[in-house]
Amino acid sequence: MRTVGWDASRREVQLIDQRCLPGRLETVSFWDYTRLSEAIRDMVVRGAPAIGVTAAFGIALAADRSSARTIELLRADLAQADAVLRASRPTAVNLFWALDRMKRVSDQPVGGCDELRERLLTEALQMAEEDIVTNRSMAVNGAALIQDGDTIIHHCNTGALAAVDWGTALGCIREAWQQGKRVHVLVDETRPRLQGARLTAWELTQYGIPFDIISDNAAGYFLRSGQVQRVMFGADRVAANGDVANKIGTYMLALAAHANQVPVIAVMPASTIDRSLKSGDAIPIEERDAEEVLGITVHGERVTPEGATARNPAFDVTPNHLITALVTELGVVHPPFVRNLASLLGKD
Amino acid sequence: MRTVGWDASRREVQLIDQRCLPGRLETVSFWDYTRLSEAIRDMVVRGAPAIGVTAAFGIALAADRSSARTIELLRADLAQADAVLRASRPTAVNLFWALDRMKRVSDQPVGGCDELRERLLTEALQMAEEDIVTNRSMAVNGAALIQDGDTIIHHCNTGALAAVDWGTALGCIREAWQQGKRVHVLVDETRPRLQGARLTAWELTQYGIPFDIISDNAAGYFLRSGQVQRVMFGADRVAANGDVANKIGTYMLALAAHANQVPVIAVMPASTIDRSLKSGDAIPIEERDAEEVLGITVHGERVTPEGATARNPAFDVTPNHLITALVTELGVVHPPFVRNLASLLGKD
Repeated sequence: MRTVGWDASRREVQLIDQRCLPGRLETVSFWDYTRLSEAIRDMVVRGAPAIGVTAAFGIALAADRSSARTIELLRADLAQADAVLRASRPTAVNLFWALDRMKRVSDQPVGGCDELRERLLTEALQMAEEDIVTNRSMAVNGAALIQDGDTIIHHCNTGALAAVDWGTALGCIREAWQQGKRVHVLVDETRPRLQGARLTAWELTQYGIPFDIISDNAAGYFLRSGQVQRVMFGADRVAANGDVANKIGTYMLALAAHANQVPVIAVMPASTIDRSLKSGDAIPIEERDAEEVLGITVHGERVTPEGATARNPAFDVTPNHLITALVTELGVVHPPFVRNLASLLGKD
Repeated sequence: MRTVGWDASRREVQLIDQRCLPGRLETVSFWDYTRLSEAIRDMVVRGAPAIGVTAAFGIALAADRSSARTIELLRADLAQADAVLRASRPTAVNLFWALDRMKRVSDQPVGGCDELRERLLTEALQMAEEDIVTNRSMAVNGAALIQDGDTIIHHCNTGALAAVDWGTALGCIREAWQQGKRVHVLVDETRPRLQGARLTAWELTQYGIPFDIISDNAAGYFLRSGQVQRVMFGADRVAANGDVANKIGTYMLALAAHANQVPVIAVMPASTIDRSLKSGDAIPIEERDAEEVLGITVHGERVTPEGATARNPAFDVTPNHLITALVTELGVVHPPFVRNLASLLGKD
């Protein structure tokens, strides 16, 4: 089962509803791109590669369901869908990358509406397939950095659920495990949405990889006491200088790893690298609903006092000097990142 | 109402049951020191100063309820109570400090059993009163380090609930507020036990001090974006070199503050300073029940997969080079801590 898929018979986008895991494995279908946009915003689907492909399917869906009979009207509908999907989440660049790629297809000269509909669906399906191939290449590149016996702290979820399939940082760990390397994962629970405690722990259970969940607070203890050999996570946007925007908490984790000489490895497809930004300071940071922080319950009882308020930035930026390596499908990049990212990605 | 108190008419120790807050303000009474020891272990009462005074009352209670008719038998009962209470929690040194102080009283020459019972109760009551005086002195010393307009990140709970009354780090913030300094507190929720989200948020609501709860993960974001002027927390044990053992997550918070040139201020009574330890590496770190991490629920639903395991260290050690100032009732200590702590505390 794929995290994001296309149901060809019903002409609908199918998503695993990640809000239900690990309790229930449910899929939900979409025939309306505005609903799909809401699903991205509400984190039915999350993970930078997964939301990129979901947005691409959103454009294909908009074309498929549009009643337009002229190319001009169809393109107008697509422009509206593009705007709606583009506004769903601000930080992960894969969303914009995917929408830009779909726009290039819709802007090309075309014979008729149905031909454009078909081309857009083909492009989205192609992007889904490419995502899996890309993930497998990243996994092989990243697994080479993992040694037999490593204990690895992993932040958020970067597994099959964060992509179409397989995953980024967790994909590297899975690949290393399949190569016969014994690893142990310390799973950051990843407050406030608990993607680690929910999704990464669930995936690792499926794969049979040994792990312990830790509160995010505890990573420093394990790093300082010499119990950790690698820190790994994904990325939502990487600037041209190698600064990494990723799930909130990544920065503090990277600081703690760096202070204890533990390698910090970020894993992402090349599409996550935003060469238009010189540094991570320009990356927009989404602030989400305070209820994600305030709504925590223990034994079913809400723990925050009535009337309490919260701040809830969903991402932070880890400056490049804390990063040991960026792993992509094209290869592994070490500092200096400005130069080495440019040579990895070419001139374009 | 005090966090820890003595009910003279019923001859019982009274504690606010901190596990019920902020939902309900309940007190619970103890006439059996073994139950009181369990209450310390189960965190009915927590906070280094509070558990110190609670343990002292435990000895007074053991004496009061002992049926011994000779000093020798009474001292044997007290030795047993001392051993039970000493084993309740390993990290906060105030527990041992308080028990040592009670032992000095019980070892003194005495006329009879009732006189010893009376002396022990007087000593425990004295320690409770001293704790408040000490806290008020710390508060004045620490408030001087807070400026009008400061946003302060605060970790765990260090308020009235962590002491007999008033508190340590939160006591400084409360004192600054009462002096008319406008402050805003970013309250680390403090996973896994959520003392920040539960207790600090509740106290700040009572005092009318403005705050927002944040997930512990988010502290780095606020520090790096220049929104924070101070980081403050308490301590469970301070080594002779100024290394600070405190609630899990303190180390990562201090790293993030230090990396962004934000002052890191730890506040504790002098009784928290363990001069017998050269560095924090020798401080025993309690590892608590994994269920504290695994039992988290959102909307009443457990989020961790069945069969998942967790690691749960309850404290970590922040090395002295990350600490800007140690605030005690005797004064504020800056680096170099080895020399300056020794001169603060004298030769003894």
